[in-house]
Amino acid sequence: MLSEQDLTYIPQVLTFWDKLSQTQKNQILKNITPVHYEKGSRIHSGGSDCIGVLLIKKGNLRVYILSEDGKEITLYRLRDGNICILSASCILENITFDVHIDAESDCEVLLIDAITYQQLCASNIYAENFANKLVIDAFSDVMWAMEQVLFMSFDKRLAIFLSDEIARNQSDILELTHEQIAKYVGSAREVVSRMLKYFAQEGIVELSRGGVKVIDKKKLRELVI
Amino acid sequence: MLSEQDLTYIPQVLTFWDKLSQTQKNQILKNITPVHYEKGSRIHSGGSDCIGVLLIKKGNLRVYILSEDGKEITLYRLRDGNICILSASCILENITFDVHIDAESDCEVLLIDAITYQQLCASNIYAENFANKLVIDAFSDVMWAMEQVLFMSFDKRLAIFLSDEIARNQSDILELTHEQIAKYVGSAREVVSRMLKYFAQEGIVELSRGGVKVIDKKKLRELVI
Repeated sequence: MLSEQDLTYIPQVLTFWDKLSQTQKNQILKNITPVHYEKGSRIHSGGSDCIGVLLIKKGNLRVYILSEDGKEITLYRLRDGNICILSASCILENITFDVHIDAESDCEVLLIDAITYQQLCASNIYAENFANKLVIDAFSDVMWAMEQVLFMSFDKRLAIFLSDEIARNQSDILELTHEQIAKYVGSAREVVSRMLKYFAQEGIVELSRGGVKVIDKKKLRELVI
Repeated sequence: MLSEQDLTYIPQVLTFWDKLSQTQKNQILKNITPVHYEKGSRIHSGGSDCIGVLLIKKGNLRVYILSEDGKEITLYRLRDGNICILSASCILENITFDVHIDAESDCEVLLIDAITYQQLCASNIYAENFANKLVIDAFSDVMWAMEQVLFMSFDKRLAIFLSDEIARNQSDILELTHEQIAKYVGSAREVVSRMLKYFAQEGIVELSRGGVKVIDKKKLRELVI
């Protein structure tokens, strides 16, 4: 059963809601299910799965690819307020690759099953366009992750800088803006911000308005090597 | 000036043509330009460029990423009849990464400039949806390329590259240096040289100063499987 909160949340995150007919709205509301995932559980396993579109109310998901010999590469993460579209990859005609999706924490999601969303896309181009844009967001995230993995330069460079600074200052807290860090490492502020955000997601640093606090020196050192 | 052939070609490849008003059609026809690119020329260079959407009448384009230290990884290729959308990345709001695009052969394209296509997207959701789907196609191609680079053993990757190239060129002789092959497959020259030497020892290829000749296609195919 949907709560009052869910009924407010759905039109908020499905930004095409106003472009739906009343019938289409009812169709979604009838076929959307609250689901709980335990921390560590597998939500989606490659091409064999196609549960549907996940509106994340609370929790973190990790989307990754898996090689035949078990090697994993994280593509991106999703959290509160995000929408997971690749768990509905079977209804996206131009998607030909497989990903895996795990719950990294206990998760509360609203699930629109794949068939319902597919029917909606067939009858409403705004719903289709919304899904496509979510895929393109994922594409941008994936490109970023891939460049880190393949070119392996900037994460290392930033990790080296942070290691050097905490050693030099004899403090785990660096009172530096992203702008200042960017100047020191010879990069752009946006690039630094994005990488620090990634470090924070990985539990390596904590970010605050005034600076950066290193909370896992072991992980930071592993990046440097 | 557009030829009669161009006027037939445009509605064929822009599959949303029927969804355009006469004004929108005229707007495109007024702002589409035949362009010739010489083999080897750079068509698009990362974030600084945004020429527009390319309808490829004839020729091959290579789309790739480039690291700060000059390492290249080929994402995908486009050919006759394909449409290149990432050369208009600035008008795609959800695209935050940069690619480079080169002409691998002499190319004849029809160019719709970025501003014109952007205006079209703003006034016609079918045009926007068409562009988004092209991006998603690219995403699938990129995922495939990435999995090759990240997961596949290198002998297999090189064998696939050589197979594809001899099929594409319809010749068993590839006039490529080890350096060039390394760029295409996203590896280092030394790694390519070592593997080619191994392939030569196995009687799969013959090496000469100017290139590589495949002499045992059966063995090469066995590596690909």
